[in-house]
Amino acid sequence: MRPVMNVAELEGLIAREFPQVDGQFSLDQITGDGVIMRMNVDNRHLRPGGTVSGPSMFALADCAFYMALLAMIGPRTLSVTTNCCIDFLRKPAPGDLVGTARILKLGKRLCVGDVLIHSDAHPEEGPVARASLTYAIAPEEVRAQP
Amino acid sequence: MRPVMNVAELEGLIAREFPQVDGQFSLDQITGDGVIMRMNVDNRHLRPGGTVSGPSMFALADCAFYMALLAMIGPRTLSVTTNCCIDFLRKPAPGDLVGTARILKLGKRLCVGDVLIHSDAHPEEGPVARASLTYAIAPEEVRAQP
Amino acid sequence: MRPVMNVAELEGLIAREFPQVDGQFSLDQITGDGVIMRMNVDNRHLRPGGTVSGPSMFALADCAFYMALLAMIGPRTLSVTTNCCIDFLRKPAPGDLVGTARILKLGKRLCVGDVLIHSDAHPEEGPVARASLTYAIAPEEVRAQP
Amino acid sequence: MRPVMNVAELEGLIAREFPQVDGQFSLDQITGDGVIMRMNVDNRHLRPGGTVSGPSMFALADCAFYMALLAMIGPRTLSVTTNCCIDFLRKPAPGDLVGTARILKLGKRLCVGDVLIHSDAHPEEGPVARASLTYAIAPEEVRAQP
Repeated sequence: MRPVMNVAELEGLIAREFPQVDGQFSLDQITGDGVIMRMNVDNRHLRPGGTVSGPSMFALADCAFYMALLAMIGPRTLSVTTNCCIDFLRKPAPGDLVGTARILKLGKRLCVGDVLIHSDAHPEEGPVARASLTYAIAPEEVRAQP
Repeated sequence: MRPVMNVAELEGLIAREFPQVDGQFSLDQITGDGVIMRMNVDNRHLRPGGTVSGPSMFALADCAFYMALLAMIGPRTLSVTTNCCIDFLRKPAPGDLVGTARILKLGKRLCVGDVLIHSDAHPEEGPVARASLTYAIAPEEVRAQP
Repeated sequence: MRPVMNVAELEGLIAREFPQVDGQFSLDQITGDGVIMRMNVDNRHLRPGGTVSGPSMFALADCAFYMALLAMIGPRTLSVTTNCCIDFLRKPAPGDLVGTARILKLGKRLCVGDVLIHSDAHPEEGPVARASLTYAIAPEEVRAQP
Repeated sequence: MRPVMNVAELEGLIAREFPQVDGQFSLDQITGDGVIMRMNVDNRHLRPGGTVSGPSMFALADCAFYMALLAMIGPRTLSVTTNCCIDFLRKPAPGDLVGTARILKLGKRLCVGDVLIHSDAHPEEGPVARASLTYAIAPEEVRAQP
């Protein structure tokens, strides 16, 4: 397992293919077995009590693992989540969240791994959420000829 | 288990407490053990390939189960998801999605159940996703005196 | 989806291929989308407090879903579980447990569904556990010629 | 989080309270946030194809996390699993399996974490399974006076 895309390429791909989430996430780093991704938390991610909503943390986990997968296999953007199991552990501190995605198995058709999410301001308080994910890997894309 | 809130009360509660999601969801029905909730799918819920994104389906499952819980216990809005496991089964047809939330155990502190999600246009094709969820139930809220 | 094996064939297959679990389980019924399976609870399934152990209930869920899958696709016995998410809801009453397995998606390579487990003596108390499972379907087996 | 029981105490507890599993598991080590536990694989753990069965790996994950919890809180043996999500990643090599349990959150009532399982003979091939678990923590036990 070795990255075949770099941070700029992955961020360009998000901006192009996922205009809905562009600006919400930024890629901090590509690691040996995944990525570290940041969610720029703003008002639309919050829920009563001032905490980050579950769907927002799910979106971070899902997007971070998608980036980890594409970093290793290239831009097969039609790869899709088939399963996610997420535990919400602590109320996040105000501010950004950081997700560390790790690939545990990269097969031909399925990729399985997990994501740990911390508050950027207080990582020492322990993870605010953990998720395990399975992606179905899309076949290599046929590209239109010019 | 018997509902203590009606559809109008639950929809009012969402509009008031969750302005971020207001308009995305509507409550079709309260059932004997949960609710049926609709996601009004629009462009922000889509991803490459034209399918509804995973985080959008997670949001529907999470919100439907939250409504099911509050329908049965009243407006303890600080109740929070502690765990969700979701399987994505089929590519949804274009159009609205409908989530059927069912409570399997309503304890004093935890509530566990599941949600089946169908395409509104083609329920006969089988569920597009299923999720199981656990919520931690908030204590009864103390209300400010006027 | 329509069964291609009957109860006697499935019970014969377990006796032949899974001597380790033979006698622990019996197949009550094949349904339109799965099976109903019984665990004959004895001392080896118990844990402190007199309740059925988690691994025993996992084994019932796993075996019931395996039977549901084989009932629909025939004896592809090398099919394997890839994911299981199980919630333990109530302390089971003494006596047998009954698992109702339901297939939600039967694809070419993956089969996804869930299992509800009740105490045979007190089904009205609600499920004691629920599980969702994914199986990777083995290719049709090549059989040795005599 | 700091261990309050040692390896001999935990192994004594298993032998006393869980005669059904005694001999199947041994505790290799108590770590800063959990334990490392070994499953002594024999014929009863196998299934067709010669691989370790899913329920056996579930039992290892469940028992390892239980030991991790008791190591940190003392012998509250009535603590029970409320949720487990397990992914089976690779066919294990013949021989023992080793589970590394890690506590991610130790609350007053719930404890959440995960377990990675490797083949003892070939850890470099990557994990054969991963599981996340939630335990409901039993109150401190009242002991009968002599």
